Parts: sequence; C-alpha cells; structure tokens
Amino acid sequence: MSRIVQKYGGTSVGDPARIKNVAARIKVIRDQGHQLVVVVSARAGVTNELIARAKEVCANPSEREMDQLLAVGEQETIALTAMALHGIGVDAISYTGAQAGIFTDKVHTKAKIRTINAKPLEKDLNAGKVIIVAGFQGINDDGQITTLGRGGSDLTAIALAAAIQADKCEIYTDVDGVYTADPRVVKDARKLSEISYDEMLELASLGSKVMQSRSVEFAAKYNVVFEVRSSFNQNPGTIVKQEVAYMEKVVVRGVAVDKDQAKVTINDITDKPGSAAKVFKALANAHINVDMIVQNAGRSGLANLTFTVPLSEKDKAVKALAPALKEVGGEAAFDENIAKLSVVGVGMKTHSGVAATLFEALAKAGVNLELISTSEIKISVVIAKDKADEAARVAHKAFDLDKV
Amino acid sequence: MSRIVQKYGGTSVGDPARIKNVAARIKVIRDQGHQLVVVVSARAGVTNELIARAKEVCANPSEREMDQLLAVGEQETIALTAMALHGIGVDAISYTGAQAGIFTDKVHTKAKIRTINAKPLEKDLNAGKVIIVAGFQGINDDGQITTLGRGGSDLTAIALAAAIQADKCEIYTDVDGVYTADPRVVKDARKLSEISYDEMLELASLGSKVMQSRSVEFAAKYNVVFEVRSSFNQNPGTIVKQEVAYMEKVVVRGVAVDKDQAKVTINDITDKPGSAAKVFKALANAHINVDMIVQNAGRSGLANLTFTVPLSEKDKAVKALAPALKEVGGEAAFDENIAKLSVVGVGMKTHSGVAATLFEALAKAGVNLELISTSEIKISVVIAKDKADEAARVAHKAFDLDKV
Repeated sequence: MSRIVQKYGGTSVGDPARIKNVAARIKVIRDQGHQLVVVVSARAGVTNELIARAKEVCANPSEREMDQLLAVGEQETIALTAMALHGIGVDAISYTGAQAGIFTDKVHTKAKIRTINAKPLEKDLNAGKVIIVAGFQGINDDGQITTLGRGGSDLTAIALAAAIQADKCEIYTDVDGVYTADPRVVKDARKLSEISYDEMLELASLGSKVMQSRSVEFAAKYNVVFEVRSSFNQNPGTIVKQEVAYMEKVVVRGVAVDKDQAKVTINDITDKPGSAAKVFKALANAHINVDMIVQNAGRSGLANLTFTVPLSEKDKAVKALAPALKEVGGEAAFDENIAKLSVVGVGMKTHSGVAATLFEALAKAGVNLELISTSEIKISVVIAKDKADEAARVAHKAFDLDKV
Repeated sequence: MSRIVQKYGGTSVGDPARIKNVAARIKVIRDQGHQLVVVVSARAGVTNELIARAKEVCANPSEREMDQLLAVGEQETIALTAMALHGIGVDAISYTGAQAGIFTDKVHTKAKIRTINAKPLEKDLNAGKVIIVAGFQGINDDGQITTLGRGGSDLTAIALAAAIQADKCEIYTDVDGVYTADPRVVKDARKLSEISYDEMLELASLGSKVMQSRSVEFAAKYNVVFEVRSSFNQNPGTIVKQEVAYMEKVVVRGVAVDKDQAKVTINDITDKPGSAAKVFKALANAHINVDMIVQNAGRSGLANLTFTVPLSEKDKAVKALAPALKEVGGEAAFDENIAKLSVVGVGMKTHSGVAATLFEALAKAGVNLELISTSEIKISVVIAKDKADEAARVAHKAFDLDKV
C-alpha cells in the first residue's frame, strides 16, 4: 500500500464526462489498495468566466473578493468528482482548501502556503476514503479565503504530498511529460523518463510551460518526488527528483525555445556607476521581468546595454524607460523578431565544450547569435525568430538528444 | 442610524446588471447613515445548473457533496455584490455562511440553524462596512458546509436580523408584497400594508408562495419584524409582525387558491379502529404530505375517507396506497380537477359567521363544496378547479377585501 497524491488540471475535469473519466482512473488505483489524495482544478474556462463577470460589475475588483469569487471554481469540481466516485462505488469525500487545513499568508491572489494541518485529512485517509482537495486555494489566519496564483493547484498537490509524506505525487496534465524539445517543432524529440529539479526549473522558466517554477522549487525544498503525465492516456510520464540516474553521462537534457521575448538595446548610455542601476530600477518599479542582461563598452565613455523582456510587457517597458533614459542618456531600440534558445543539463557543470558544440552547430546552420548568457546548467542564446525552429532541431541533434 | 438586514433573491441578482442595480439600492440606504447586512441568493438558474451537472456524474449524489456543490452559487453572488459596491465607492465585504458564523446541525440539504456567532460581523459592521452574506448556507461543528433547504436565504436574513438585533429586516423578492388575493386572478386585490405572523403562515402554506413557512415561524419565535417588498421598484411592501393595528376589526385578511392538489377518496373502507391509521402510515412512509382529511360514515360497517395530496405526489400516492388498501379494503379514487380555496384572518377567531358568509357567497356563484376544513384563523374548501378563479373573486368581494 502506497500513499499517492494525484493532481488533475482544468482540461482533465473540463466537463461531467471527463470528471467521470478521472473518477474511473482513481478507482483503478484505489482498487489496488493505495491511499489516495486527489487535487483538482476548476473546470477549464470557469475561472475566465468568473473574472469576466467580476469585470462587468467593477472595473478594478478587490483581490480579497476576487479570491472569494475564484475559489468557487475548484469547490464545484471537488464536489462533482466526489459524486462521480460515489457513483462507481468508491468511498470519497471532498475538501475545500480551508477544510484541508491549507493555511496561507494574507496576500490575496498570490498567497504563499505557510503550513498544512493534515490531521482531519489523515483521519479520513486512514478510514479508507479517497480525498478530493480543491487546488489553488487556502485560508489565512483571519478565516479569509486566499488563492495561490498561477500554477496554484500543482503547488497544492506538492505541498500536500510533503505534508502527508506521500510515496508518490502525480501531476496529470494535457501533455505526456517533459520532452527533450517541443515535439511539434523537433520531430525526434524524446520524452524524458527522469529529470532533476534544477533542470526542470530551467525548463519551466523557459519555453516548456509544463509547470510553474514555484511548484518545482517547493518540491525541491521538501524533496517531493513527482511525476508529470497525461490524464488522457496510460503512458508513463517524466519523474522529477533530486538525483537522476546516470546524470553525469548526459550533458544536455533538453532544448527549449521561447518566442515570447523582445530584445531591448540601449545605445550610448553614459558609462558611469549607477547608470545601469537606474535603468533596471525603472523596469523593476513597473514590475517588468528582465532577462539576459549584457553590457558592452561602446564608444569612449559610452556603453551599450542589451537585455530581453517578455513581449507582452514591451509597451510597459517603453513607457517605464523614457524618464530613466532622459537621466542617463542613450536611446532604446526594441526588436520583437527574436527568440531565446536554451540548452539545459546538470551534466554540463562538469563538461567543457558544450558552448562550443552549440555555437558551432548553429553557425553551420547559418544562425547568427545576437546575445549569449550562461548559468551553471544552461546556455541561452538570442537568435532571429524565424530561425528558432531550425535552430532547435540543429541543437537537438548536436547533443544526440534523439538517441536514448 | 438604524441597523437593517436586507435579503435579495435569485432574480434580483440574476446577472451583472441586476447585481449593479442592487448595489445602487444598497448605496442609497448606506448613504443615509444606516448599518447594513445584505443577504443574497445564488443567481437565478445557477442552482438548477449545478444540480443538473451533479446528476450527470452520479444518479444519486450524496447530500454532503450536494451541499458542498450548491454553496458555490451564493459564494459567487456575495463576491460579485461586494465588488459592485466597491465599484460605486461603498466599503463592503463578503461573508460565506461559515465566515458569518452561521452554525447549523448536521442534517445536510435541510440543516437547521443552531446558533450564530455574530462577533466578526459586528466588528466589520461597526467599522462602517456593508456586509454581504451568502444566504442558504451554514457550517456545522465538524467544519462541513451545510445548506438550509428551500427558502433558506430568507431564513438566513431573519436569523441574522435576530442575532444582530436589527431594527428592520427587508425581504426583497419579485413581488410587491402580500396581497388580499392573487392580483392576476382578482383584479381588485389590494396589497396589505401589515399582516400577522399567523396569517402569513397560513398564506405561506397555501397558494401565496411569497415565503416558506419555516422563515415566518422563525421570525415569530424570535419576534423579528420583517417587510416583504420588490427589488424592482420603490413601492412599500407588506410588514409582517406579531401585532397588527386594528387587527380585530378585520375579520378576513386574504384569499388564497391552491390548484396543485389532488383529491383522494377511499370508499367502503372497513370502519374499525386502525384502518385510517394504516392508510396514513403508508402515505407518511412515502413522505407524502396529506391535507384536509375528512371521514364520513358510509354504508353499514364501512366508511368513506377523503383527503388531498400535492398533485406532483399523486403517482407516488397511488403506489403507496395499494398495499394498505389490500389490508383494510376499499377502493381509491383520484380527482385532479380540484382546487383548494382558503380565507385567512386572525379576526375570525372572535367573529362567528365567517363560514356562513363564505359558503353563501360561493353557493350564489354556483360553486359546489366538495370538502371543508377549518382552523382557528382559516377556512378551506375544495371546489372544482375550473371554478377556482371565479370563487376567489366572489370570496374576495364577500369579505370587502377590495376596500381599505
């Protein structure tokens, strides 16, 4: 008998038929004698409907009331899932975030889990019930309903797995697992059977939107081993954990492409201490995420500063930079026709030559590198957007990712 | 400054535009300096949608999960109503039933309110906030969400009014108040400015479906004076309270017609002790409400037993009666073409001649009386369904109900 935490996302519980499908999957595991805690999201689309209704009554809804509103999405799904289980003879009980003892801080719409009181849940679990928990939500010390923000249901599952010391945590989603590259672009892309937290984090924060970074970080902190897999088939997924077998042999684990970035170049900035700080402080005040910062000395006394920002925040960046540029001089140029390609792998820490292999392969394919940035387990380059897919295929092949 | 509890039903908060309309009404009262607690129902239709979804996943959903599911309807409305108030500059905060400290017993889908802990609510009220409370729901001592059953939101409002010692309790609905008869049938019907709890109870349990009996009973028990009025206009409604001015002068307060009844006649039942008991026990076991029981001696040793049941439960009654009739003899005849007409008034306690006036007026109009039953403040007769509207007009006129 194992203790298993499963999480099903919004598309997996998108309508009554799919909820019944999830219930049938749960029954199979339950009938094997395992203890089960199942975290579910709101039906796909419900959250957006609720937000639309909120905007109709108020241009700028309060975050406290938004949480009160959005929490109903998951509460509907837990009740329906428990009912679907009853319908096929499985003893089950639904828990809201509050009932599951998920206590958070007081930051509405993006609360952090502070502690979990799993006692009531343990009692029902030991009584043989399957427990269905509302993802994405918790309660604070004042009895207010809070929500955890994007990727919150994954976080609920991983936090519960830590709290009840589950043997397994399975994150069901609409993809089969984590691939060496986007299979729609690189046809030889392979599904990874295992990946480390660090690699997953680099991939999550790049283009492979399988999971939000915070859930992976939480799992790493509490050493929760989890599997990402599909709720629409029975294929094994990708197991994410601290140590991966044969890790050192594999230099590069995957290739990720992010086309939702814009490149910002500020030419002829005054090259004196504090100039760059002023630029980035202006961006930080506007809550703009900045990535891949590179500064080169330019003409005498002047420097060139280049970085990337999310494409969706380009207009905000233009606005935020204007006053700062008046102060430090220089002119900003924006380029939307770029993509960021990254190769990720824990193995590259101890292997030289990864950068050389990548750059050589891209050069052969006629791909020009506009920016380069590296971390311990990642090399990222900015290239022309129209070359991104071809570059991903070339890089994938250069590191033999198509071979097991 | 008064303390006012208001309750808005499902049609009053049926869509974002109507929620904004309710918010505007609340703001007017708030701007007069009053303290306000507002109870809202689920948007009209939402509860039925949720029930339909439940039936899709499970033929016979558990009551505990049904409560967990249905509670989301009101939770959505409270958040949207609070947001709509914020949008027009009114400080407001929403409370679920649990947050409002509404503790119930453990009977799911028809819980009874045990106690209300109004401390958190009082605090926000004294801080000047308008408080929006989810009707129809509460929480039991185990932290389970419960619902109060039909008319539950009215009950929430009246119970809260008692708990916070409100000066006024206003039940907003889609009718203007309580009328002397159904205005669609009797064109001279007048809206009553006042009515007693007892009269309202008789009217509620008859055809004038303004409110469920249990809410009126609760109000009578805790002496909560409330007003029934419309949320779609500014007309004054009907005030329901213990003592009504000039009560003794008014003999009959109103005329109610219920067309949703069927008459059951059992002929030639064995006339010995226990026969009738067996019949009604069979009906009680099938949870069928029986009304207006009359037994006459029939042929030697045999009796005739007549009563009414709700039309919707006729088929269930046929089935339930079959085995009992085998035991006690007799044959059941069902008549769906009947209506129950009742005249109600506290004043009739001390006035004789009410029955005579009613029967004479109906006789003049050629209306035959099939059954008669009386209580201290009510006389009910069963008549042919196609004569019901005319009979209501005749009775209304006979008691001068068209005159103030």
